[in-house]
Amino acid sequence: MSALNPLFRPRSIAVVGASASPDKAGHAMMQALDGFAGDLYPVNPRGGAILGRTALAGLGELPGPVDLAVLVVPPKAVPHTIDEAAAAGVRAAVVCAGGFGESGPEGLELQEQTVEAARRGGVRLLGPNTSGFMNPVDGVFANFMPAAAGLRPGTVGIVAQSGGVNLAIAFLLERAGIGLRLGVGLGNAVDVGFAEMLDFFADDDTTAAVGLHVEGVADGAALVAALRRVTARKPVVAFKVGRSDVGDFAKSHTGSLTGSYALTRAALAQAGAVVVDGLDEMVAAVAALRSVRLPAAPPSATGVAVLTGQAGPGLVVADALGARGVRVPELAPATLARLGELLPPLTYQRNPVDTGRPSATFPDVLRLVAAEPGIAAVGVYALDEPGVLDPVSAVEGVAGRVLYATGGPAAAVEEHRARLEKLGVPLYASPGDLAIGLAALVSDAAARAVPDAPPVTATRTLGGDLDEGRALDEDQAKALFEAQGLRTMGRRAVEDRAAAHEALDALGGPGRPVVVKVLDATVLHKSDVGGVHVGVRSHAELDAALDAIDAIDGTSGRRYLVEEQAPSGTELIVGGVRDAVFGPVVLLGLGGVGVELGSEPVLRLAPLSAERAAEMVDALPSAVLDGFRGAPPVDRAALAATLLAVSDVLTQHRDITEIDLNPVRVTARGPVVLDAVVVRTPEEENHGQHA
Amino acid sequence: MSALNPLFRPRSIAVVGASASPDKAGHAMMQALDGFAGDLYPVNPRGGAILGRTALAGLGELPGPVDLAVLVVPPKAVPHTIDEAAAAGVRAAVVCAGGFGESGPEGLELQEQTVEAARRGGVRLLGPNTSGFMNPVDGVFANFMPAAAGLRPGTVGIVAQSGGVNLAIAFLLERAGIGLRLGVGLGNAVDVGFAEMLDFFADDDTTAAVGLHVEGVADGAALVAALRRVTARKPVVAFKVGRSDVGDFAKSHTGSLTGSYALTRAALAQAGAVVVDGLDEMVAAVAALRSVRLPAAPPSATGVAVLTGQAGPGLVVADALGARGVRVPELAPATLARLGELLPPLTYQRNPVDTGRPSATFPDVLRLVAAEPGIAAVGVYALDEPGVLDPVSAVEGVAGRVLYATGGPAAAVEEHRARLEKLGVPLYASPGDLAIGLAALVSDAAARAVPDAPPVTATRTLGGDLDEGRALDEDQAKALFEAQGLRTMGRRAVEDRAAAHEALDALGGPGRPVVVKVLDATVLHKSDVGGVHVGVRSHAELDAALDAIDAIDGTSGRRYLVEEQAPSGTELIVGGVRDAVFGPVVLLGLGGVGVELGSEPVLRLAPLSAERAAEMVDALPSAVLDGFRGAPPVDRAALAATLLAVSDVLTQHRDITEIDLNPVRVTARGPVVLDAVVVRTPEEENHGQHA
Repeated sequence: MSALNPLFRPRSIAVVGASASPDKAGHAMMQALDGFAGDLYPVNPRGGAILGRTALAGLGELPGPVDLAVLVVPPKAVPHTIDEAAAAGVRAAVVCAGGFGESGPEGLELQEQTVEAARRGGVRLLGPNTSGFMNPVDGVFANFMPAAAGLRPGTVGIVAQSGGVNLAIAFLLERAGIGLRLGVGLGNAVDVGFAEMLDFFADDDTTAAVGLHVEGVADGAALVAALRRVTARKPVVAFKVGRSDVGDFAKSHTGSLTGSYALTRAALAQAGAVVVDGLDEMVAAVAALRSVRLPAAPPSATGVAVLTGQAGPGLVVADALGARGVRVPELAPATLARLGELLPPLTYQRNPVDTGRPSATFPDVLRLVAAEPGIAAVGVYALDEPGVLDPVSAVEGVAGRVLYATGGPAAAVEEHRARLEKLGVPLYASPGDLAIGLAALVSDAAARAVPDAPPVTATRTLGGDLDEGRALDEDQAKALFEAQGLRTMGRRAVEDRAAAHEALDALGGPGRPVVVKVLDATVLHKSDVGGVHVGVRSHAELDAALDAIDAIDGTSGRRYLVEEQAPSGTELIVGGVRDAVFGPVVLLGLGGVGVELGSEPVLRLAPLSAERAAEMVDALPSAVLDGFRGAPPVDRAALAATLLAVSDVLTQHRDITEIDLNPVRVTARGPVVLDAVVVRTPEEENHGQHA
Repeated sequence: MSALNPLFRPRSIAVVGASASPDKAGHAMMQALDGFAGDLYPVNPRGGAILGRTALAGLGELPGPVDLAVLVVPPKAVPHTIDEAAAAGVRAAVVCAGGFGESGPEGLELQEQTVEAARRGGVRLLGPNTSGFMNPVDGVFANFMPAAAGLRPGTVGIVAQSGGVNLAIAFLLERAGIGLRLGVGLGNAVDVGFAEMLDFFADDDTTAAVGLHVEGVADGAALVAALRRVTARKPVVAFKVGRSDVGDFAKSHTGSLTGSYALTRAALAQAGAVVVDGLDEMVAAVAALRSVRLPAAPPSATGVAVLTGQAGPGLVVADALGARGVRVPELAPATLARLGELLPPLTYQRNPVDTGRPSATFPDVLRLVAAEPGIAAVGVYALDEPGVLDPVSAVEGVAGRVLYATGGPAAAVEEHRARLEKLGVPLYASPGDLAIGLAALVSDAAARAVPDAPPVTATRTLGGDLDEGRALDEDQAKALFEAQGLRTMGRRAVEDRAAAHEALDALGGPGRPVVVKVLDATVLHKSDVGGVHVGVRSHAELDAALDAIDAIDGTSGRRYLVEEQAPSGTELIVGGVRDAVFGPVVLLGLGGVGVELGSEPVLRLAPLSAERAAEMVDALPSAVLDGFRGAPPVDRAALAATLLAVSDVLTQHRDITEIDLNPVRVTARGPVVLDAVVVRTPEEENHGQHA
């Protein structure tokens, strides 16, 4: 039994600030709750009757303990109202007012008082700064939109950071004919937050799938852990706001910064969510996933078939699937042979399967395609033609692996939807939504196909003589990763010019150029200040390079690094960082111009499992993996080992805050670390960092 | 009066192949036409009654001339049925059957016979291989879905290449509450095609906006010209299939290859269409554009405001707008000052404008924001709260520059939609669709902001001694573009080694390296075969380079090009090609790894206007334009001049089929052409190429 039952499934409710004036929020809240089957108590100091119920003058007049108090009172009244509620035996409260943490120092203080009052009184809180929640299954509509009481009950849970978005999603679901189990707007989330809501839905038998709306994340580790728990049992579709710069407005809204868009999306996906680009896409994805879940498998192993009664829309579906990276493989010869018997000769049958105008064989064709081992799911498109094709007969025996889309009058679509719904077959009203649904099935299957390593606690620090500074110099950093088995070029760290010349003799020569670099951990962008000189072959060239290095500002006491020059190849960046929200993160990206051209790095939460590291490598552009313009192809295993080394070093050492292997050059003999930076934070400054 | 009136607005119709059997297409067609107000004649050799009408045994029994014959007969019966129709005075025919050009040589012959019969008899044809059309405004539903007769009349025209997609779009519009003026599926389009349909809609006073579905284009010039005509008067939203590889299926469908996806999209946009990624997006875009059209202006000059009753959904809208490159500028100080008086202090007001829970000032706020000179259009989001905000009162005085979105029960949304529609304010049911609608307004305004040069007929050929070969050598090609004012490096084309060494003395030296290249128009990929040597400073290095060039296979009689080496900088590709469908095209892309990393080149139809060339330059990534990693920024005017030179040379010379300036290096002194290839086709092979 969930600790949140008094909040979301109360037996009795008090509405503090209930109002008889139709234009007041306290009236709308009473209207929304009007159909509540348990005891409902309006509370208003002025008394009177509200929607036929006599208002109590205060919570003290409640006849006994009440599960839920809905507070429609000004922000300043909230803390003492919670005190009163606790005294009256209230177990949970929804706090609707804004003007708390999102609104500045004064509001933040009020928020702290509110939290303190709730803790003191043992009252669980939703909000503040939320419109509340809707629970059509249990008939509890605690929010400002009385019309929400008409939402149909169902199996989709919503966790929205914003109360307005919670309502927006709920009505989008309703419009798509999808029932709601419980929709919650978290608001400032001072008590009930993402993680606890996800756990509620994980344990709730009525919930089949969850939609998650995220603006900003305060506790990344808790969100990720909760997502892993719920997605192991049921699918989650997540939408993260912040593709573009909406920072100021976002912060003013629920007080949360939207944070790193790319990292948050990567973390949501890694924790098992299907990440979408908008609310409409969320609805189309959740429509599929609440009924159909495919076996865990990478996208390359999940084939989808498209069966269409009309070629044109089928082409639209197939095209959209291709653009989303969904495999629509050619059907097996045996299937094709049988299709040839079932379908007229003029139609395309290899996948997509075009039936021409649907005939009596349509159900047989669907069963045949769905039964092919290489096909995990089938998307059907057929215009609604009564008398020609009955959707319910068509899907007999294939529920659980088929999504259906149609075009036709609204009434007919709704009727088909209701009938198909009972069979576990989602019905869409557009080819595009069908493609989104199919892609979501593939994406959800893929999210479960890669096992992740369990979190580790960083117990070690870099010891010995390394403790003298905050950052390692290049020689030390490379030695650290050599110890992890990574390749570097032969090098010598030297103290003076004479030793540099000896190093040139030892490592280089006319046909073997060396690279000469400044060796100083305080110089972070060596190239930019003239601290890196490539192609040094002669002693004269070496002297010129050393002159340039010596001319760098503040150069006293610096050393030099003389290194064999690496063969050419594609340059990658492998990095690690300790994110303030999500903890250790490993990055793999293109070096050089790739970054400027907008190539997004691959981000994953550490520690990486071997499978996760391999999946990161596979996410590189195929032109890079295969080697382009004569560059060597990537040694995938060796690059994955590089990622794992960064993951291990970062997650095991609590004093390391950043690792930058940049570039790692892809050579014919595998990846070679050409430069390495390791940034450390002294212990005393490392409080509050996630492990 | 349109020549297509007998087809789409007939006074009388004969259905050949009408059937009394409910499972026959000829019955569905009769059902669909059952409500037709003019004379309707079923034709069936077996006679009998069909839906209460007595069937004629043949077209010869028609009592008089009939505007339209709908042919629901097998493909082989089509040519002679058209002959009979012509004899009976029929002026237009819809040919539904498939099995024509899309199905192989036999079908193609049948198609040619069909076209011949129609020409002979003066009968205009829609199809073959189409489900027909729906004209709710005039009450003519000539297609296989009787339910389509329930589509509401309106102002949106559809031109779909596929009959199935025509119906799919029509029902998506219906679902979105948008009325249809006329929806047409072209099928194989042997007579009525894209261009004529667009002209029909351009001239039709009832049509306010057009949705266009394109699989493949046969005549690019005609499509582009027609699009320019219609978009000058009313907006067009275009969707091109073919993002992913759907070639085989597409070809089997309407017999048309999907062609170049990128080029077709670029051509559609350049001709004035708003290009979208799917049918749902088309519906959301056309919903806005049928009511609101903004003044022509580039996206940078079209500011959009978001006014929201709930912060969360407003954030979703603003985020989606940002991702689509729509400007949501901060409001002017005077506006902000006035907003401060109208709104509670806790809300965000700079744009998006968050009203908090809507109050009585909402309409004033909307009028204020809409009146700001920097704001071209306002997107409103407000959950439906009866008693709190009436959408119709809210938009008083701002119709024509506002789109509205809401969330609420379907009945309430439909009621608001009907009322707002009358005022010219589109209503959306999702934040995402609102963002699509606003972005479509901006995109449509942008499409009209860049004037294009009129088509030119290529009258010249490259004359004189150039006529000896098909391709120019690098020296000739560079001379051609130098004559157009483009910059190259100093160079000498030399016949032998002695002259090469003289050239080195003249152009290069120890501190001034030269580039030595093979000079031979038949060697197309010089670098790949060792035909390009950079950094040549000494005579010894020059000899080594010449040795390598001499070692290229089949090298007898080759010459050398000795050229000053250019300073470093970003490398671009400027190209021109004569596309088989769209004619002359100019390309601007990133050189080097940019192509491999998936950076899409900018494609535009030639001839380019000065404004179009500037717009192409502005489409480069800003990192490239501004100069990244110390590279010089792009001289935009000089690069635009480079594009214009390629455009001029390509469009004026009918013997030039391809131009490749690759790379054009961006130096501190402007773009420099480092290599140039001009490919020519002898006159006799150039038939059928578009001018």
